[in-house]
Amino acid sequence: MSFARPTFTCLGGGHGLYQTLTAARAAGAEDISAVVTVADDGGSSGRLRREIDLVPPGDLRMALAALTDDSVNGTVWRDTLQHRFGGHGAMAGHALGNLIIAGLAERLGDTQAALDQVAEWTGSAGRVIPVCPQPLDIEADVAGLDDDPRVLRSVRGQVAVATTPGEVRRVRLTPARPAASRDAVQAILDADIVTIGPGSWFSSVIPHLLVPEITDALNQTDAKVVVILNLSPEAGETHGFTTERHIHVFAQHAPALRVDTILVDNTVPATQGERENLRHAAEQLGAEVEFRSLREMGEDGVALNRHDPLKLAAAFKDLAQGE
Amino acid sequence: MSFARPTFTCLGGGHGLYQTLTAARAAGAEDISAVVTVADDGGSSGRLRREIDLVPPGDLRMALAALTDDSVNGTVWRDTLQHRFGGHGAMAGHALGNLIIAGLAERLGDTQAALDQVAEWTGSAGRVIPVCPQPLDIEADVAGLDDDPRVLRSVRGQVAVATTPGEVRRVRLTPARPAASRDAVQAILDADIVTIGPGSWFSSVIPHLLVPEITDALNQTDAKVVVILNLSPEAGETHGFTTERHIHVFAQHAPALRVDTILVDNTVPATQGERENLRHAAEQLGAEVEFRSLREMGEDGVALNRHDPLKLAAAFKDLAQGE
Repeated sequence: MSFARPTFTCLGGGHGLYQTLTAARAAGAEDISAVVTVADDGGSSGRLRREIDLVPPGDLRMALAALTDDSVNGTVWRDTLQHRFGGHGAMAGHALGNLIIAGLAERLGDTQAALDQVAEWTGSAGRVIPVCPQPLDIEADVAGLDDDPRVLRSVRGQVAVATTPGEVRRVRLTPARPAASRDAVQAILDADIVTIGPGSWFSSVIPHLLVPEITDALNQTDAKVVVILNLSPEAGETHGFTTERHIHVFAQHAPALRVDTILVDNTVPATQGERENLRHAAEQLGAEVEFRSLREMGEDGVALNRHDPLKLAAAFKDLAQGE
Repeated sequence: MSFARPTFTCLGGGHGLYQTLTAARAAGAEDISAVVTVADDGGSSGRLRREIDLVPPGDLRMALAALTDDSVNGTVWRDTLQHRFGGHGAMAGHALGNLIIAGLAERLGDTQAALDQVAEWTGSAGRVIPVCPQPLDIEADVAGLDDDPRVLRSVRGQVAVATTPGEVRRVRLTPARPAASRDAVQAILDADIVTIGPGSWFSSVIPHLLVPEITDALNQTDAKVVVILNLSPEAGETHGFTTERHIHVFAQHAPALRVDTILVDNTVPATQGERENLRHAAEQLGAEVEFRSLREMGEDGVALNRHDPLKLAAAFKDLAQGE
């Protein structure tokens, strides 16, 4: 398998997906599809969702901003999408791009048509597709909220799950087993490389695996399926999780899923023993683990807590060339 | 004076300006500048103005929508600008175009830069310029609100003035004698044809005349200066005004102003005597009155209460050719 200009389909949400999409652009992608979580209930998205019946636009907007080109027009559009209103009134904190997506979706009666229109205006390097055509909620079983550590409490909502001081054991979607967007399924089937993650593990990454047609498509596609692990545990939902445990909970939520490669920054496992544990955990998914330098370094040489799009792009190119 | 493709500068606001700008496009304008009122304090504009310090965007948005071309992209943009949010929350009733203008102006720190950016995206037939760079308020002396009809009450705000049940005698700006936008002055000086009106007489038309640099520019320009009278009295602010009285209050607010032509729909003056009165009133402004068929007819042959852009365009072409 070798692709000079591979086609990417990237699953995720938020800042993690932003970095992956930027990397896919840098890797010279022929085409990119972003398949985006629709369970956000916080911030500007949450406010819009509570007053208008719509797919929460925040993660969609971030993906559109990532796919916008670096021309003058693209840069103005990226700034426009990402701008947050000031003041102290009803608009304060709303991202302008969220309002554009929400208003267009309302106008056209179709979120996908709205996203495709914005993509056309911005000269987008690809397409942004909600993983499901309707908004979802996530609900988690969380331990450690009671005095008795064996008691599991149900925590509902993306913000509540992402910030829980307890330990998330399992996450569900409501409604359960929702239908996927047909375009999302097709994009997975048509891709050369499919990426999953990085991002908030329980609230942006794993929810994709709970949509049955998405896991089916991931198992059917000829694409290389690549999971990109986080560089460090998120505060809240995966606080204190080992990297190995990230793989375990991933596999636990999608026991039938096969994955080709798990990309891990080579500073994350501290010892050779930890590397072996990671490789062992990856076997549940049928995956090989690849350790690479993926972390972005600040100008002062300090390691940052995010993936470097160029390093990630280099990894993608190697994967596309079958190395 | 004869121009195959004249340059237009159109002063006004709201639906009246929308019709005039549409007419200027239909007349094959080489270039169009819309010089727009900035005193609106109602609806979506008023809400934005109260929470963010900005020029009220509603009349600016309407003008941008009028100047958008009829291509597929232009039509989508017009719908996008004019879309109003539904729901029952903080967004309900906001025009999406108002939010785009407000957000971009906030982002760029410059309302004119924001308007020029939107004009570029929409493939605009011209430029939209706020008459003054800062928001203004209008204040009116109104008779008939007391039992004693001689008592004048001060009414403040565009909405309050436009809907007063009393009789407006005089209108002021606060702050008084504001500086004009330099681009507005230049557009008047550079035009072949300058139009003023139609529109809400006291709240969208006359306020332009209270900006000293605007009246100076109107007197200095080589353009034909054309006032377009309303087809009927507005409910509220000019309820019961004769057409002749519209000219009197116009002249009263700008005693030094010279005008070339006053365009009047030929069904408005009912008698030959009324025509003579109109001609006499127009002499205060040094203007000739031209009676033409300007009214739009509905498909059922019923006369509508708005100007027909094609009839107005024909009048503009004749004026440009010096007929």
